[in-house]
Amino acid sequence: MNPSEKLQELFLKFPGIGPKQAARFVYFLMREKNNYKQDLARNIEALKDSSNICEKCLRVFSKYNNQKDSSICDICANSMRDKKSLMIVVKELDIDAIEKTKFYNGKYFVLGNLLPFLTEKPSEVINIRELVNLIHNDLQKEEKTENLEEIIFALPATDEGENTINYLKKTLAQIVGIENVRMSTLARGLSSGLDIEYVDKNTFKEAFEHRG
Amino acid sequence: MNPSEKLQELFLKFPGIGPKQAARFVYFLMREKNNYKQDLARNIEALKDSSNICEKCLRVFSKYNNQKDSSICDICANSMRDKKSLMIVVKELDIDAIEKTKFYNGKYFVLGNLLPFLTEKPSEVINIRELVNLIHNDLQKEEKTENLEEIIFALPATDEGENTINYLKKTLAQIVGIENVRMSTLARGLSSGLDIEYVDKNTFKEAFEHRG
Repeated sequence: MNPSEKLQELFLKFPGIGPKQAARFVYFLMREKNNYKQDLARNIEALKDSSNICEKCLRVFSKYNNQKDSSICDICANSMRDKKSLMIVVKELDIDAIEKTKFYNGKYFVLGNLLPFLTEKPSEVINIRELVNLIHNDLQKEEKTENLEEIIFALPATDEGENTINYLKKTLAQIVGIENVRMSTLARGLSSGLDIEYVDKNTFKEAFEHRG
Repeated sequence: MNPSEKLQELFLKFPGIGPKQAARFVYFLMREKNNYKQDLARNIEALKDSSNICEKCLRVFSKYNNQKDSSICDICANSMRDKKSLMIVVKELDIDAIEKTKFYNGKYFVLGNLLPFLTEKPSEVINIRELVNLIHNDLQKEEKTENLEEIIFALPATDEGENTINYLKKTLAQIVGIENVRMSTLARGLSSGLDIEYVDKNTFKEAFEHRG
């Protein structure tokens, strides 16, 4: 297999990339300058051993932004962040989007996936064990001031998102001491700037039911 | 800029990739095993100096598939291919798709782009100069048996495709000796397997007008 065939195979592993697009990437690279290819290869190399998965929130992070060899990401390590709120998201990009709003100052947890309906082994699909452990440890802390007060489910407004939230609520409810922790989900309704003319049925239903 | 930020910037140059997807690629790589990253980096490196642009058809090709240091691709160099037909396509992926059908045995020419309406300098958008030269040389060949008999425009069935074909026909018509060369375009009509229920207006119009 020559490098271009091998590359096409490797690009197929990229998220959301099918055979056509993988081939397009290879032709693009074949036409690009050697400098660009060099840069790309070097930076991919540099990524080796440079990323870590945070042992608290399971978020993948670059060691360059943090202290080297840290096992905890910059958000989890930041003592200025509110330790009383834990926001559950699916993936790192969700954290990036929320951080950009500068509206939330609590902690996060990366679930990894949504839970499809009728999943037999949820713990193989989402990071539920790690989440339970994290909350468990938090609730059993000595210093009461650090204790968790709210878990916010920031999951997609889809049926799978709903299913996941239901599963999480049911599972987390079994943790000792959780009774005093508020569990909330992001509100559903009209997106900011949406003209009523373009509202879809489900959005209108949610917006109507939660009107106030 | 750390490697993950730099990579995100480099992925933005990939065809059809926006900021969101570039970030998704970086997170994907951060989570992937070092082996995979190594493989990817090495094969991108190996692509350096390993691809050539065919000086006849302008197609980019891997030197691994051909004789090293060849300046002509395997299709153009293949003496078993019919030299009497020249098929004009936009990009290499189109050639790959047509070659897979094993239905065409002539030569190709890669135009590079389609021509948008009202383009002031077509030669900066499409490889028109190179196409004219190629046909010119062909028509002025001594051995008459090698002469071009047909130019087939295999361009997308869109308005821009039409516009490009019109421009090409007009421009090529000025070449001395071209009068005896047939110029054709791929037929337009129903895609194979299409249920009439799903036909769009333009496809139906074409299929109806060219019925027979």
